[in-house]
Amino acid sequence: MSIDVVETLEEILHPQSVAVVGASNNPSSWGYSYTRHLLYYGYQGKIYPVNPNYDEVLGLKSYPSLREIPGSVDYVISCVRASEVLSMLENCSSKSVKAVHLYTARFSETGRREAARHEQEILKQAKRAGIRLIGPNCMGVYYPQQGLSFGYNLPKESGAVGMLSQTGGGASGFVHLASMRGIRFSKVISYGNALDLNECDYLDYFAQDVETRIILIYIEGVKGGQRFFDSLHHAASAKPVIVIKGGRGKSGTRAIASHTASLAGSIRVWEAAITQAGAIPARDFDEMADLAVSFYFLPPIRGPRVGVIGGGGGPSVLAAEACEEAGLDVIPLPSELCQEMKKKGITIWDWISNPTDVSILGGSGLTDTDMLQMMAKNDNFDLLIANMNETVIISLAPKERLAFGLPRQVEGYIKVKEEYSKPLLTVVEEKGPGIGDYDDETWKLICEMRTKLITAGIPFYPTMGRAARTARKVLDYYLRRQ
Amino acid sequence: MSIDVVETLEEILHPQSVAVVGASNNPSSWGYSYTRHLLYYGYQGKIYPVNPNYDEVLGLKSYPSLREIPGSVDYVISCVRASEVLSMLENCSSKSVKAVHLYTARFSETGRREAARHEQEILKQAKRAGIRLIGPNCMGVYYPQQGLSFGYNLPKESGAVGMLSQTGGGASGFVHLASMRGIRFSKVISYGNALDLNECDYLDYFAQDVETRIILIYIEGVKGGQRFFDSLHHAASAKPVIVIKGGRGKSGTRAIASHTASLAGSIRVWEAAITQAGAIPARDFDEMADLAVSFYFLPPIRGPRVGVIGGGGGPSVLAAEACEEAGLDVIPLPSELCQEMKKKGITIWDWISNPTDVSILGGSGLTDTDMLQMMAKNDNFDLLIANMNETVIISLAPKERLAFGLPRQVEGYIKVKEEYSKPLLTVVEEKGPGIGDYDDETWKLICEMRTKLITAGIPFYPTMGRAARTARKVLDYYLRRQ
Repeated sequence: MSIDVVETLEEILHPQSVAVVGASNNPSSWGYSYTRHLLYYGYQGKIYPVNPNYDEVLGLKSYPSLREIPGSVDYVISCVRASEVLSMLENCSSKSVKAVHLYTARFSETGRREAARHEQEILKQAKRAGIRLIGPNCMGVYYPQQGLSFGYNLPKESGAVGMLSQTGGGASGFVHLASMRGIRFSKVISYGNALDLNECDYLDYFAQDVETRIILIYIEGVKGGQRFFDSLHHAASAKPVIVIKGGRGKSGTRAIASHTASLAGSIRVWEAAITQAGAIPARDFDEMADLAVSFYFLPPIRGPRVGVIGGGGGPSVLAAEACEEAGLDVIPLPSELCQEMKKKGITIWDWISNPTDVSILGGSGLTDTDMLQMMAKNDNFDLLIANMNETVIISLAPKERLAFGLPRQVEGYIKVKEEYSKPLLTVVEEKGPGIGDYDDETWKLICEMRTKLITAGIPFYPTMGRAARTARKVLDYYLRRQ
Repeated sequence: MSIDVVETLEEILHPQSVAVVGASNNPSSWGYSYTRHLLYYGYQGKIYPVNPNYDEVLGLKSYPSLREIPGSVDYVISCVRASEVLSMLENCSSKSVKAVHLYTARFSETGRREAARHEQEILKQAKRAGIRLIGPNCMGVYYPQQGLSFGYNLPKESGAVGMLSQTGGGASGFVHLASMRGIRFSKVISYGNALDLNECDYLDYFAQDVETRIILIYIEGVKGGQRFFDSLHHAASAKPVIVIKGGRGKSGTRAIASHTASLAGSIRVWEAAITQAGAIPARDFDEMADLAVSFYFLPPIRGPRVGVIGGGGGPSVLAAEACEEAGLDVIPLPSELCQEMKKKGITIWDWISNPTDVSILGGSGLTDTDMLQMMAKNDNFDLLIANMNETVIISLAPKERLAFGLPRQVEGYIKVKEEYSKPLLTVVEEKGPGIGDYDDETWKLICEMRTKLITAGIPFYPTMGRAARTARKVLDYYLRRQ
């Protein structure tokens, strides 16, 4: 691990001034977006749009070139064409620029020889000038606390998840979708072709970054395998690291050749190596989100014995199987728990099971929250999964009951979460409504429930299967660390 | 296959009059719901609420008992307690009732001996009186064309999918979620404990039902294995049949014991037997929905060679891998297609690949629709998957561009669907927004896109992996039938 590069990155990520070269007032240009993001996300340093065709960009004075900017510039976002990068770098050098983020693309990723050669020339010139490069062919930095962003609809608030990603759109889309699951980020770096600063530099940085508690990685190929695994091992010894390795199969590898021009290994070798380094492999961004929310919200999972509030009859059967197939242990209800129900006068005490079929509880004097509480305080259960079961409920209950029942269910989950230290996962389905369904207030109610859950620090998962598989992966992680 | 029972079911499903015994004005009672559904879904025959405590239920005259109803009653929905069923059946007999749907539960599914005995007495009495039973412990019938329903938020319109289900809540929830994927149903029968009419009777009925083009089954255990597989084979020779077998593992089996009191076999045996009968096994309701929309909307898939519009760089890599891991063949772009692009003056013709990374198309003169069209007319592709990629787009484009861009994308899909006979699957993510996201008009726009797609007869799938795995299962089905 290089201390130098960590310090360099810390400096790069806290610029006093940012210039957007190729800034524009055309909303469909990237020069517009990057300038807009600096304003929207509240960047506090100086912002210099650079474009000879404008006097003003988004209300800010625009400069014909970097050279005309008064004073120094720390950080440059390059939205110009590939052919203009070399001359732009010359200008950077005269302004003591520390780092250039090359959003600019069409280099080695095209698979063309002259483009790759051009890229190497850029690297040489940057090195001569002492300028560090992020990219090319990447989205750059999302660092909400500093007001740096590469996307729309990404949270302004910060959180404890850091991410480095070879894919830009994928990273941006992931930040968006993970934010809907309750995650907030320290900083995200999309680094594309990794011409200068590379995956190991960023990973070393995140490993020691006090703002980052969990590290996410999307990587397609690495340029120096040994150093990467050293960095990965080092990072994973400090915090949970979740890794998607893109380019596992033959077509994926071909897709990569045209994407970031680096070599992809085979899936099994990668997954084994990632696990051996102490990190957690994920298959895709959905699985990464599941794992991330688990580490973000849950206390450690120490064993496989799960208590499940499973929905109605059929959903309970399928819930049990999803848990079992994931490698969790759906234990029978402990006898002391059954005796407790009997003592309370619950006449169906011998019929209630794990998973608990909530459809039989009506009129029994026992609620799903009671059941969850009994499971939470019983040492035989290592974790709990509660299925909100809203798709079924929507189809069986009138709106008035939904508006009463769902919040009551969720308040029960929150109560259990607050009173007991047991890991509690919830299943709230993600369904894609059409416009007619959307206009139904039911969907709004479910959105409110999701917000309530994550505000209370309870993660939700879109299916029982995903909750169960994630819990098992998280358990395996903690078992390996023992 | 019994012709008699098919005719009996046809008669049962077209009653001239329906009585709801245990009807109520209390909106949280099932007697309220069933009466409400008859009115809401537009049942055209006579409706008789029965409850001595009311003069009127939902504006309809209520009768103190079945006996006071003037004239005969064809179909009875029983919402009374288990202890009242025998005396109710006596009254049914005096009104020439043909069938009773026993929503009433707490019989053999409780695992209690006296409850199972009671259930057998009910069967005996019904047989004596010539009354057929649906259930007990079930939701009964959803037959929108006849105005029969067991749920809220289920479509009033009919379609070509029939379903028989041992689970009631699961079936109701499934109808709701499948309707959001564009499916409409002929009739759905939730049959619970199958005391009298059983899974084979219903399956035989659906096999010959002209209103049903696709059959879905959720089954936990069967009482006569051979007859069931004969019925399944017979049905599957006539139309696609998709089967979820609940109760595959040890805990699932335990959950079943308390659910519908029938024996569950092991998963592998079941999946093999289902496939051998010519039907298609599904793991859960999500997979069932994926398969159902495929048979509902797509022409047959005849080969594995897939053309993918994959989103941006990383998502394209992951899309390729998801397809490959599912057993589809992500072929390189055929040379004649590359030559066609070159001829058209597309400078990046040698860089564009399958999956197509749409992020490199900007300014190339080629759109994703152009690409999809070229793939559609090229015989080397057996099917196409287009990723709407909206999660990434939302994070990278301002709202104005979304409102323009997403509809343009979807219109492209519709154009390709209408001009070519090639199977076209689309990926539109299902994400669970919180209340802040929901209020953002973007979500409404995506709901509109989903509605546009299914209105045009194009199925969508929540992830690339699910689209690819479903396509492979559907392909295997057609290959087996050749």
